[in-house]
Amino acid sequence: MAVNLRIPDASEILPVAGVEIGVAEAGIRKAGRRDLTVFRIAPGSSVAGVFTRNRFRAAPVQVCEEHLAGGQPIGALVINTGNANAGTGQPGLDGARATCKALAGLMSLEPGQVLPFSTGVILEPLPVDRLVAALPRALENLSPRGWMDAAHGIMTTDTQPKIASTRFELGGRTVTVTGISKGAGMIRPNMATMLGFLATDAGIAQPLLARLAHEIADLSFNRITVDGDTSTNDSFVMIATGRSGLQVDSETDPHYGPLRDALARAALELAQKIVRDAEGATKFITIRVEQARDTQEALKVAYSVAHSPLVKTAFYASDPNLGRILAAVGYAGIDDLDTATVRLWLGDVLVARDGGRDPDYQEEDGQRIMQQAEIEVRIALGRGQAADTVYTCDFSHEYVSINADYRS
Amino acid sequence: MAVNLRIPDASEILPVAGVEIGVAEAGIRKAGRRDLTVFRIAPGSSVAGVFTRNRFRAAPVQVCEEHLAGGQPIGALVINTGNANAGTGQPGLDGARATCKALAGLMSLEPGQVLPFSTGVILEPLPVDRLVAALPRALENLSPRGWMDAAHGIMTTDTQPKIASTRFELGGRTVTVTGISKGAGMIRPNMATMLGFLATDAGIAQPLLARLAHEIADLSFNRITVDGDTSTNDSFVMIATGRSGLQVDSETDPHYGPLRDALARAALELAQKIVRDAEGATKFITIRVEQARDTQEALKVAYSVAHSPLVKTAFYASDPNLGRILAAVGYAGIDDLDTATVRLWLGDVLVARDGGRDPDYQEEDGQRIMQQAEIEVRIALGRGQAADTVYTCDFSHEYVSINADYRS
Repeated sequence: MAVNLRIPDASEILPVAGVEIGVAEAGIRKAGRRDLTVFRIAPGSSVAGVFTRNRFRAAPVQVCEEHLAGGQPIGALVINTGNANAGTGQPGLDGARATCKALAGLMSLEPGQVLPFSTGVILEPLPVDRLVAALPRALENLSPRGWMDAAHGIMTTDTQPKIASTRFELGGRTVTVTGISKGAGMIRPNMATMLGFLATDAGIAQPLLARLAHEIADLSFNRITVDGDTSTNDSFVMIATGRSGLQVDSETDPHYGPLRDALARAALELAQKIVRDAEGATKFITIRVEQARDTQEALKVAYSVAHSPLVKTAFYASDPNLGRILAAVGYAGIDDLDTATVRLWLGDVLVARDGGRDPDYQEEDGQRIMQQAEIEVRIALGRGQAADTVYTCDFSHEYVSINADYRS
Repeated sequence: MAVNLRIPDASEILPVAGVEIGVAEAGIRKAGRRDLTVFRIAPGSSVAGVFTRNRFRAAPVQVCEEHLAGGQPIGALVINTGNANAGTGQPGLDGARATCKALAGLMSLEPGQVLPFSTGVILEPLPVDRLVAALPRALENLSPRGWMDAAHGIMTTDTQPKIASTRFELGGRTVTVTGISKGAGMIRPNMATMLGFLATDAGIAQPLLARLAHEIADLSFNRITVDGDTSTNDSFVMIATGRSGLQVDSETDPHYGPLRDALARAALELAQKIVRDAEGATKFITIRVEQARDTQEALKVAYSVAHSPLVKTAFYASDPNLGRILAAVGYAGIDDLDTATVRLWLGDVLVARDGGRDPDYQEEDGQRIMQQAEIEVRIALGRGQAADTVYTCDFSHEYVSINADYRS
């Protein structure tokens, strides 16, 4: 069902020196699936994370923030699917800490050097014993080529694994960037998405990596939405191992720009893959808002359109019922919006201007665009110079089926 | 498909002295349906309206506001379904004005004494000629007993007509209140709902009626949501004919309180009927937020839960996947929310407290409540004394079908 989501061949998934990954079956929720993933990160690497702003932050998110603030070098990540360990109160925190402690013991690390992640059902106790019991098996499988297994290992309602991988020359070194993400529903990241992990063998100083992780999350995971539901578990982690020999320690380094752009492109690919594999999605929709007074205003309008169930069902039906888009622009909360200056394009077709339908608009032109699998909606507000873009999908029967059946 | 929506018998629908209603087939969108409704309002009546805050306000909404501001006594309403006359620019305004002028001519009124209303598809030209041609037939049918015909005549995707009617003694007079509403999708009224008309034969001075219309809209239509989509055409009109002999001209009148309460009850019934007949609804859900710092905060949380597609699909599935409710509370935008003080009840069952599941919560208790057709979600924030309530429905396959098919 995914929309133009390309899964790279094994040969295209490039290992990142300094990162090894192992997976195992822990039986967290269902037997017989690899639901536990461990990353081993070589000493000397920098790790930074960005996490959900949902006030009901999951226990592992809280522990990640503690451990990153603690300042010890991160040496491992541990990720389970099948249970979000969110809305689990003190026992949930205890479980996340016990997981870190157990893995640290097996890897000769301190618990504060382990970052835990969980994804799955909220409000159910984490089966810590089963998780801990499976850790040795995940460690046995550690391999630099574990990315595809990990991409599978972190899936929930995802139908496809999500991987981005690229290699380029920079500063006389060959630099690799590889990452994975997961997420298909409860996707309206606020600072980061459900789960995203992006590694490079470039070296990036820790404070710079921390800033960069926020900047990149804002350009990628923070620009997608499936259903407007910001998850309790959103986490985006960047790992820079330095093993390529390239080292970047400040924004003024001439290699910083190209490296940032390569990382941002990979992150955007991972974020867009979440939308392409969104629950029930049949269309990939880009909503670009231009001529706004500021970015916040552009995003307000873009999200208003992206979250409208009426707009999303019209896309599902390939029905150019485009008044629904104007209605969503109108209720986006811009109190002094002059509707006479708003213009709306569907793909390259001008649909509305001067507060109404463009006189030259033909229904069949709208229909032609609506039938495509990838659609751009462009809205010019006529108020200023700011622009921003949000990526979303349509709203189908399948979304209802998936979310009415999930967990039951 | 409507949820416990009771249609009154003909004998229960009480005429309001001073109000006559006629309907006709104008062929606005489809042939053979009565899509045009005219109200004749007796001289001496007061009329007040509350309208959408969507910036793409429909042409008739703009004309209503002009005519009400003009101060001439309102003598007629004209309502068409099948076309919203929204997103229609200057031609749309011209069409709404031409309609008022034509009806005024037939009724010996000034155009400024007529209020126009439209509902249906957005962004399509209004067929003014067909509408105007049918006006004489609507006038021929004028009758004090036209309420049920009007309730049918203003429907779009509604499956049932929505009527509230009541009679009571006040100040030695027999006072009647009767109203109709329509709406099933694009429902998240902001100042008023899609269309609501409420009449009484009590007399209420114009400035008082204008304040009262806002107050009552806030207690009724502004507390419901189906899909979060604020319409371009929301309009709520109150008519007070004075024919019962009861006259109320100020808030200090001892009869004001009981009259306001009766009108508010009727408006709330009409608003709730919209939710009961919401597109695809199988459940009627009351979301009550208590212990908020202020009303705005309570409503923020209530709407966050009410609009979550994940919460709504869980209700559809009767699946007590209640972590989704906590997640929606967590992303409602209260930045300093302490999740440890939040409690969540489903019906009379305490589900969550202290940041996690209540230790005594049993899945079968949640399941029992979820299977009911009417469900109350109660959320105590533990922050203050304010409380508010929002009414909504679940999110079903049928919603997607209706909105993917509508118009096509």
